[in-house]
This record gives sequence, C-alpha cells and structure tokens, in this order.
Amino acid sequence: MSYTPPVAEQSFLLRHIVRIDELAAHAPFAEATPDLVEAIVEGAGAFASGEFAPLNRIGDQVGAKWSPDGVTLPQGFREAYRAYVEGGWGTLAGPTEHGGQGLPLTLATVVMEDLGSANMGFSLIMMLTPGAVEALKHHGSETLQQTWLPKLISGEWTGTMNLTESQAGSDVGALKTRAVPNGDGSFTITGQKIFITFGDHDLADNIVHLVLARTPGGAAGTRGISLFLVPKFLLDADGRPAQANDVRCVSIEHKMGIHASPTCVMSYGDEGRCRGWLIGEEHGGMRAMFTMMNNARLNVGLQGVSIAEAATQQAVAYARQRVQGAREGAPAAILGYPDVRRMLLRMKALTQAARALAYYAAGQTDRATLGDAAAKARADLLTPLVKAYGTDIGVEVASLGVQVHGGMGFIEETGAAQHLRDIRIAPIYEGTNGIQAADLVGRKLSMDGGGVLAALLAEVRADAVDEPALLALTDSADAIARHLLSASADDRLAGSYPFLTLLSAVVCGWLMKRQLVALDGEEGLDPAFATMKRAAARFYLDQMVPEASGLAAAATAGAAALYALDEEAFAA
Amino acid sequence: MSYTPPVAEQSFLLRHIVRIDELAAHAPFAEATPDLVEAIVEGAGAFASGEFAPLNRIGDQVGAKWSPDGVTLPQGFREAYRAYVEGGWGTLAGPTEHGGQGLPLTLATVVMEDLGSANMGFSLIMMLTPGAVEALKHHGSETLQQTWLPKLISGEWTGTMNLTESQAGSDVGALKTRAVPNGDGSFTITGQKIFITFGDHDLADNIVHLVLARTPGGAAGTRGISLFLVPKFLLDADGRPAQANDVRCVSIEHKMGIHASPTCVMSYGDEGRCRGWLIGEEHGGMRAMFTMMNNARLNVGLQGVSIAEAATQQAVAYARQRVQGAREGAPAAILGYPDVRRMLLRMKALTQAARALAYYAAGQTDRATLGDAAAKARADLLTPLVKAYGTDIGVEVASLGVQVHGGMGFIEETGAAQHLRDIRIAPIYEGTNGIQAADLVGRKLSMDGGGVLAALLAEVRADAVDEPALLALTDSADAIARHLLSASADDRLAGSYPFLTLLSAVVCGWLMKRQLVALDGEEGLDPAFATMKRAAARFYLDQMVPEASGLAAAATAGAAALYALDEEAFAA
Repeated sequence: MSYTPPVAEQSFLLRHIVRIDELAAHAPFAEATPDLVEAIVEGAGAFASGEFAPLNRIGDQVGAKWSPDGVTLPQGFREAYRAYVEGGWGTLAGPTEHGGQGLPLTLATVVMEDLGSANMGFSLIMMLTPGAVEALKHHGSETLQQTWLPKLISGEWTGTMNLTESQAGSDVGALKTRAVPNGDGSFTITGQKIFITFGDHDLADNIVHLVLARTPGGAAGTRGISLFLVPKFLLDADGRPAQANDVRCVSIEHKMGIHASPTCVMSYGDEGRCRGWLIGEEHGGMRAMFTMMNNARLNVGLQGVSIAEAATQQAVAYARQRVQGAREGAPAAILGYPDVRRMLLRMKALTQAARALAYYAAGQTDRATLGDAAAKARADLLTPLVKAYGTDIGVEVASLGVQVHGGMGFIEETGAAQHLRDIRIAPIYEGTNGIQAADLVGRKLSMDGGGVLAALLAEVRADAVDEPALLALTDSADAIARHLLSASADDRLAGSYPFLTLLSAVVCGWLMKRQLVALDGEEGLDPAFATMKRAAARFYLDQMVPEASGLAAAATAGAAALYALDEEAFAA
Repeated sequence: MSYTPPVAEQSFLLRHIVRIDELAAHAPFAEATPDLVEAIVEGAGAFASGEFAPLNRIGDQVGAKWSPDGVTLPQGFREAYRAYVEGGWGTLAGPTEHGGQGLPLTLATVVMEDLGSANMGFSLIMMLTPGAVEALKHHGSETLQQTWLPKLISGEWTGTMNLTESQAGSDVGALKTRAVPNGDGSFTITGQKIFITFGDHDLADNIVHLVLARTPGGAAGTRGISLFLVPKFLLDADGRPAQANDVRCVSIEHKMGIHASPTCVMSYGDEGRCRGWLIGEEHGGMRAMFTMMNNARLNVGLQGVSIAEAATQQAVAYARQRVQGAREGAPAAILGYPDVRRMLLRMKALTQAARALAYYAAGQTDRATLGDAAAKARADLLTPLVKAYGTDIGVEVASLGVQVHGGMGFIEETGAAQHLRDIRIAPIYEGTNGIQAADLVGRKLSMDGGGVLAALLAEVRADAVDEPALLALTDSADAIARHLLSASADDRLAGSYPFLTLLSAVVCGWLMKRQLVALDGEEGLDPAFATMKRAAARFYLDQMVPEASGLAAAATAGAAALYALDEEAFAA
C-alpha cells in the first residue's frame, strides 16, 4: 500500500484548529517550536509511509499467528517496531521524568494518525502502550513508575489493557478475575480475559498487562474492582525481564480485519503463580482504567481519520487513472463524472471533519494538562464525539472507497476492502458507539448543568453568523439538548445516538468554518491545498450539515416507540 | 446459520402491497390462488432454510475453488442444487410453453429472497438463469428457444451474463470481444470477459453464456454490440451436452465476500473454435441485455432485503440471549436497552421498507406483463430505487448487525461479519448505485415529461393526508424533481444519488403507511406480528422519513461545487 502523509493538512490544523503556538507559549510545552513541530509532522509521515505501509498487506493476508509458544507477527514487523522504538516515536508525549519528551499530546496524535493510515492493525500496539503509561503515571506508586515507565515510554516494552471477560463486555462490573494479596506487596492473579489486543507478540522484550480484577471482600459491580500490573516476564534484580510469569495467550481470534493485531484470550494463573502489583488504590480500578480509556477513545476516533485518509487517497488515485466512457468527446477518467466527484468530495469532507474534531479535542486535552479547567470539560464533552463520529466516518468513507473502485473494490488485491474490514471494529471497541452516546447524554450533557455544552454552542454561533445552515443546526442541537436534559433516562438514551451524530456535525461544521476563515487569513499556502480545503469545507457546510438536520426527529422521539413491542414481537 | 423464513411478513405484503388477488384475477395468473401462494411461500422458506442455510458458512470459509479442470463448489452444494431443480423452484415464473409454470414474477421474488437470505453467494446461480431465460424468451429465435429454454427453465442448465471486460465496466460500449459469422448461422467468438458470476461450476450439466460481442463492421460504442448464446458444451443431435466448446474459466477472483459464488475470468476462443449463436437482431445486443438487466436489478435490490433479513434475525436472537448489566435491578439481555432497541427497530424498519419496495416493483412488473402500460412505466421508474436503495439498506443493516453483536460481531465464527462482507458487492454489481441514480434522473425522471413520477407522488399524497412528515418529504421530492428536470445534465447528476435516496424514502414511507392501514383492516393476524409491523412502520415514518429530508440540500446543490477543484486539488 502506498500512503502519502497529508502533511499540509496536518500542519494547517495544528496552526489553526489546535493553535499549537498557544500551547508552546506555556513553559511545559516550550519545546514545541514551529521547527520541531514541522520536523515531527514530516518525520512521522515519512516513517509511517516508509516503514509501516509496506507491511499493511502482509499484515492482512498473513497476519498474526498463534502457537503454544506464543504469538508471532509476519516477517518485517519486528524490524519495523524496532525502528519505531529507535526513532523515539513512542516517547513524544511521555513524561520527561521517565525519559519522555513531554511534548503536547496533539503531536503524538499526528504520529498515531500516520501510523494508523499506514497500517491500522500494527498501529494498535503503539496506541495501547501510552495508555498504560498514563495509568501508571497518574495512579502507580513511585516504585512501580521507576520500574516500569522508562521502558514503556521508550516502547522497548509494550502495554495492554485487560478489561473484558466473556460475560463482561460493556458491563465491566461483571468481571470475575481474582487478585489475592501475597503479603509481600504482590497479588496472585487468577482469571481469563478476552479481546486483549497484542496480549502476546514477538516484537518486544516484555509485555506489561494492566488487568482489572477483584480482591477478596470487594463490593459487587465496578466498585469492587482494582487495577493490577501483571508482566509477561518478572524482572530480575537488575530490572531485566527474566522468569516467565504465569500468564499466557491461549488462542487468538479469527477476525474480519486488523489481522496484524493479535486479539488474544489471556489466561492468568493456570498454575496458581501469576503475580501482579496493585496500581493505585484498592477498589480504585475503574478510575485508573478510565485514565487509559479516555486516551484510548480519542485514539480510536483517530483511527477513523487514519483509515478515512488512506481510503480517500486510494480512491482518488484510482479515479484519476480509471478511464470509462467519455466526457465532451474525449475518453474520461471516472474522476470526471459528477457522482464520482460527489463521493470523493464527501470522503474528503468527512475525513477532514473527523480530523479537525480529533485534533481539536487533543488540543483541549493539552490545555487541560496546563490546568485549564474549561478545556478539560470541553475535552470530556467531545471525547464521545471523537470516538463515535470519528469511527462512523471511518466506516462510511472506507465503504465509499470500495464503491469508487467499482467491481475492483470487492477484489481483495485492490486493498480497498481491507480498509473497510479493518475499520469496522472501531465503532465497537473501547466502548461501543452506543456506549459513547450514553456517555454523552448521561455524564457529559449534564456537566455544569448543561453549561459546558452551552459554552461550546455559543462559540459556534459567534463564528457561524453567515452560515444559516450551521446556525439552524446549532439551534436544533441546543433545543434537543435542553429537551434531553429534562427527559427520562430511557428517553434520553433513545435519542442519544442521533443526537451524538447531529451534535458532531455542529462541532465539525464549526471547525470547517474556522478553517475557511483561516484560509482567507493565511498567505503562501499551496494553491491546490487551499482550493481543496475550501471545496471540502464548503461541501461539509452545504451538504453534511443540512443532512444531519434530518436526525432531529429521531433524537427527540423518545423511548416509547422502542418499547411498544416486546421480545417476542421483535422476533416476529 | 439458522434462518427462519419471514412467512407472515411475506404473505402480508403479497396481500396488501402486491395485491396478488388482483393478479390472479387475470387469466394468465389464474393459477396463483391463495392456496398455491401459501404453499409456495411456506415451501420456499422451508427449502431455503433446510437446504441452503446449512451451506452458508462452508460456502464462505471454503468457497468455490479453481483448477485447470474447472471450478468446484464445496461439498453439499451439488446435492442442494439438484434439490432446487427437482423441487421445480426455478420453473415458477418461466413461460409455460417451455416447461415453466407461468406464475407471477412476484412469487419467484419471494423464493429468491429466501434463497438469498439463506445463502447469498449460492443464490446467485439461481438469480442469473432466469435472466438468460428472459433474454431468450423475448429475443431468441424459435430454434434457440426450443433448444435451450426447457433446460434453463428447469435449472438443469444454468445461465450467465457476460458484459464486463477489463477496460469496459460501467462503459459497456468499450468492449472488444469479437464475433465473426461462420456462414452456417453460427459465429466464432474471441475475447475475454471478467467478473462473470458462476462462469464455471460443477453443479449442472451445461452452462449457457450470454455474451456481448462486436460483429465485423459494427459501429463503435453500444450500437455495434450484439448478444450471443455461447454454451459450455455444444449439443449432439439429440440435444444433449457433448463436445466441449472453446471457452474456459482461466481464474477466479479473491473477493471480500460471496465466496460461494465463483467470479470468473472467462476466455472465449483461445483455440479459435468457440462457437456462439446470435440472440435477436445483429447490433441489438444492448436491447436484449437490458431485458436481462432490469430483471437482475430488481433481484440485486432484493439481495439487500435478503441479507438485511438474515442479519436482523441474527442480531435479534443475539440481543435476546446476551446478558449485560441490569435494568430495574435484574440482569438484562441487551435487547432491554434503548439504543440496542433503536438499532434493531431501525434494522427491522429498513428491511421491511426495502422488501415492500421490491415486492411492489415486482407486482408492477407482473401487471406490465398483463399489458398495463402505467404499471410498466412505474416499474421502470422504481427499478433504480429497488436496486440502489435496497442494496444500501442491505449494507447498512448488515453493518448494524455487526454492531449489535459488539466484539463478537467482528469475530468471523459469529457470522455477522459475513453478511456485511457478502452484501458489500450489491451496491456495485448490475450497474453501480451511481449508475442507478443516473438512470433515475436521466431516463426515468423524464418519462412522460415527468408524468410517471407525478402520478406516483399524487398517490402518495392521497394516502399520506394524516402523515405530515411524509407529506413534507413528498413535497420536497416533487420540488427537487421539477428542479432537476430543468437543470443541466451535470447538475442533475450531481444531485442524483441524494435524490434517489430521498425519493426512495417517500415511496417506502408510502408503502409502510399502506401497511398500517391494512393492519387496521385485517383480522386474525398473529398479535406479535401485528405489533411488530406497527412499530416498524411507525419507526420508518417517524424517524427514517424525517432523516431523509436532510438530503434535499445535496440533491439540489448542483455540480459547480464538485468542479471547483481540479484533479491535482483532489489529490492535495
């Protein structure tokens, strides 16, 4: 697969949507000078396209393989992963006290986007380790931090996230894995976890599992859950991986896509000697896990951007070279036809909208790190939008990519189908998009009595004075939000998903409008880039925003219609 | 895979949407008595679920295999195909003078729906043969008909449709396959075709290829194209397959889905001795091919219904048994949660809407057969809607089916992913959905100066007096149609796809409303069925119809925005 990093677009967003110069004006991010930012954006793109993209197809066609001795990745993956570690790409946003560079999360976001476009399945390992770093940084003891963080930050060791059990998916509180104190500060872990991404592999010297488990006497549900660090290899006195811990990958799943990412069933303590260490407070596992999850949710939303970008690039390239029929008397590439253009411009507009949303949320997260409480609240509000709308866009754009290829899109050798097969997991994992919608109308909408959303909508309105469709959609979102705030829990949930999509279109419409304004103010842009950006932003404002207005009825329809039929009737 | 035929739903639609009693009142369809209709609906469902569904997974996982000796299907397919032939399922709508039963196409539509739900890849062979029958019936000489029709109608021999060449996809007129007269009434065929469904297999004793080719001196483009019958085996004096013709399958494609359906590269005349016979007039190939295509387009739209039904059944079954969390203090199956209900009800509403549209169009086609010119025009108008909207629904519902399954949906063993992989071809083949949209705003919208559409919308309005959302959408469709009729070709095409979707929602909303009215008038219905039907119809009218209203802006946006950027800018 060939991948051309969208450097001009990424830089444009860093300037005008993230406003990274504002971040660099604060001491903690002073290193993020324009020169360094440019070097990272260009370097990450070159690295992803040079080292990761060439492995995308073998990752899909050969994929990760399981044997009783462990999971192996196809030829080339080990070398590419080593290059990632040696390039220091994992260290960008890591804490400086343990070897990280302490740069804004937004820059790590650009890197993750590139890696995901080039090789989504592979990139998952790069996505999970920073989550483990975050959890340790915020909740781990000083000893745990010193022992584990440096190698996790460098990427020499990798991290995993172990929530799910066969009976405990969206309902994490139903998990049964047990942790019994050994009296020496360690715990003995026993249980089985499923859907553990990169739970085993041959790319790094150790794997650090973050495992949710239940200690003796803990309350039922999520309140009785604690988080444990469970290494694949226990460390010797010099801190080097030595004896194998009692943890193993007992099988991997046969999946629709992301075949390069082993999805493991992990068994802890088959021999009764699996050791783990508590991270944070006992029974404080959910809080610690949420630290990982918020980060991961932004990154999964970003995967939608990554695949949308890759699919769009491939579709544009195909449409430019595929000749069918004639326009104005001359043989024409299919890019010449209105409906193909409509599909491609829709792909570009959606991709850019999702990217702007993800980058903006990352920028707010960085501001939150600097102590900006309003930015923290806004990042919290936007997280479910980034995750759900971003991944829905990933799926839609990948599917349009197949469509643009016509019959060739259905042939696996083309690669268009792989994008769709790969991205289809993204609306599911890290909290299904339905869970995101519930989070939006539950926790997020009511923050500050609705004030967090109101502040956002006020900003949108101020910038949208000459955009009637966007203003109308903003009014609609406002009215729906007020309605939902006073509605019953079920009515709120019944409208949650359509509301999430509609509100996302408001925010993305606003960010596209901001880019239009920025275009007028910036000189020296590549004319092709400026033309494309203008067309994509206008398409979003003129077509996607009105399209989303059709969701208002569903958002306020309430739950009664959904409960007008019982189980038997559903099956009739 | 388990498949429960939706017998109550199919029968309800035959009564109230097709109004099959009106068809049976005409002599040609007098056999279609209520008893026979019931026997066919029940028998087809039992046959499909009993014989075809058990082969769905092996068809996907093993699939069709190519060797130099030809293509073979997995174990069990030959027996199941033989059972199809022996059951007479292929003969239902075939002409009586050659062994068919002469029943309404609508009944064959019910059978195809069942077969497609049970095993989409396999069902393609059952879908293509009737197309070959239609082409021969309408355009073949008496000799050709007597020689080939009886065995095609019985299904003992199968048919194919050979349009596409590597450089000639949507642009059929670019094809290069040649046909040179031999002087004895036969032609020598030379060329290569791609994407030939069931171009070779081991299920039947002969394969009858219908091949578009160019005769010497024929005009360029579609006007110089003729249609030929090219058998796999030439017949001996007794009409039995004997000597192999010079035609072979040189490879099959590695596809995203429908693995049970071999997609063949066919080579004609490698040894210069491939014989074919002209069907219809020389240079009249496109006309003859369109006879096949209209039929095939309705059937492909129906595949959207088939997969939507199968995916919905599977998702409902999963949602009933998958317990996560609690509602009102008790462990709850996920079907209890509002957003899961929303997804499932959306799946049911979309599936039923697409089915109603497909059945209605089939019923209009049957009326056309009886000489009803208005019905013929309406069937022509609706064909692109059935194909495009039906297949878009198939993809959306299959994707929702994956989502309802959560992480399990991405695991291949579950079967939910297969539905999505299988149906993704349907918006592409038999004329991409973009081509359907072009057909709608090109040929179909202008029929009778817009009068065909106007008559339809008048009927909708009359039935929708108490449905404000549907009335508003009908007005919107009307206004857009008038706008497009006077717009430039490019502006028309730019809005074609959103218009097709919006108009489809008008027609489906109308057919759902008709069902609500019919519910009130029919006694003795299964209460669970009546409850479900009412809920699904209301969901469509209250949520899907308003949602479609958001497409009006895109339908009238025009082409200028699409041409504001050139090729380079698209790639920027």
